Amino acid sequence: MHSLRFTAETSSNGVRERDFLVGDVPGVLWSPETASDHAPVVLMGHGGGLHKKTPAQAARAADTVTTWGFHVVAIDAPGHGDRPRTAADDRARDQMRQAVTAGDKARFEAVSVGYTTALAERAVPEWQATLDALQQLPEIGPEAPIGYGGGVSMGTAIGIPLTAADPRIVAAVFGGGFFVYESLLAAARRITVPVQFLLPWDDEYVDRQSSLTLFDAFASAEKTLHANPGDHRRIRWIGLDQGFLAGHLSRAGAPVS
Amino acid sequence: MHSLRFTAETSSNGVRERDFLVGDVPGVLWSPETASDHAPVVLMGHGGGLHKKTPAQAARAADTVTTWGFHVVAIDAPGHGDRPRTAADDRARDQMRQAVTAGDKARFEAVSVGYTTALAERAVPEWQATLDALQQLPEIGPEAPIGYGGGVSMGTAIGIPLTAADPRIVAAVFGGGFFVYESLLAAARRITVPVQFLLPWDDEYVDRQSSLTLFDAFASAEKTLHANPGDHRRIRWIGLDQGFLAGHLSRAGAPVS
Repeated sequence: MHSLRFTAETSSNGVRERDFLVGDVPGVLWSPETASDHAPVVLMGHGGGLHKKTPAQAARAADTVTTWGFHVVAIDAPGHGDRPRTAADDRARDQMRQAVTAGDKARFEAVSVGYTTALAERAVPEWQATLDALQQLPEIGPEAPIGYGGGVSMGTAIGIPLTAADPRIVAAVFGGGFFVYESLLAAARRITVPVQFLLPWDDEYVDRQSSLTLFDAFASAEKTLHANPGDHRRIRWIGLDQGFLAGHLSRAGAPVS
Repeated sequence: MHSLRFTAETSSNGVRERDFLVGDVPGVLWSPETASDHAPVVLMGHGGGLHKKTPAQAARAADTVTTWGFHVVAIDAPGHGDRPRTAADDRARDQMRQAVTAGDKARFEAVSVGYTTALAERAVPEWQATLDALQQLPEIGPEAPIGYGGGVSMGTAIGIPLTAADPRIVAAVFGGGFFVYESLLAAARRITVPVQFLLPWDDEYVDRQSSLTLFDAFASAEKTLHANPGDHRRIRWIGLDQGFLAGHLSRAGAPVS
């Protein structure tokens, strides 16, 4: 088992930001400057073509750290951010670009699904190794409640099989904006923790019905679908329950009486 | 134009409850015991077979009054509560019951749509007359912002044509749980105010897709779909933005600078 190796540290506005490596997977841990012991941890997935530390993601992380006093962790997905791209990654990206340019939606979907499926298969064990390593940190430990705050798109394509596989995750935020495929539905059917599902109501490529089918698949007794107009790249979320994860993680961490 | 005639008054736990008549339509006005001038008014529609003052509706009204300092008003729909039922009302109810007993869903839908359409046509002008009369009260006046907090089912079947017809309504809460029909979709396409739409994800009779089509139809730039598992009679709303109406009505009532 790999341990977590910190490689850089900065601090500003109450947020401590530490870059790390677990094996060769680079990640970032945002924490309160004065964190309480075993504070909850939110796992943040990033979208396709992006990376662990985009300005939007860093801002969301800082907000979670300062509002709730939680840790937030993100890692680069395979072939993203600071990680090398394989020949297969490059080929898939080229094929997706070509399909979009040619206006071939069916081809775009086929390539995208193949690429995302393979990517999620690599990403899930990387997230689990990261969790193992995080739990070795004294300030986190095995006691800290863990939630997945994946956001829409690729972060959800990774987060669903991860949440289905890992009982340490006690609540999850997922969202639409990508092509749903059968193995993802199968994973969703194994998820029973509370789920908040964010649906961009209008997407240029992705059929809305497939996202509704995905929401339908979660076995969770407590699940909420939240939709606003817009595409997943430009959406403005309105009327969202921002305290969803916080509520579940705080309850999960409360002492058992 | 009818004026509003108060017929009874009680007060408890900070909530003043006044029964009234506008013409022959009975209603109830819940208000803070010490209301600020021109406080916002929330119109509450009730479900089919119910009435203006069910325990659930009274509790919701009391919560709105004490949490936000707003007025809440409800009136009995035609053929409901304290109002006489016509022979046509009785016939429609009998037919719906028979269709349900016979397990004839198509027949149930056809009778339900016919009944609801006719009922909404009668209810819209009654609500508008009630609004006219309320605005004559000095504590409300034409200045008070007005929102529709209709809830699901029949309250929405009335609220959509009402909101489409009456520019005094500046924001609305609607919901699924009833059969959607074409004239209702046409009314939804004329609505441009912010809408919060509550969808019970599982309904014994109503096709989910029809509710999604209805949400799609609203012309509002700001609209939010919120779904939780359950039938509209038994649903527990989780993670809902309870401040949706309050936010819009408070903004609408702010002094223009």
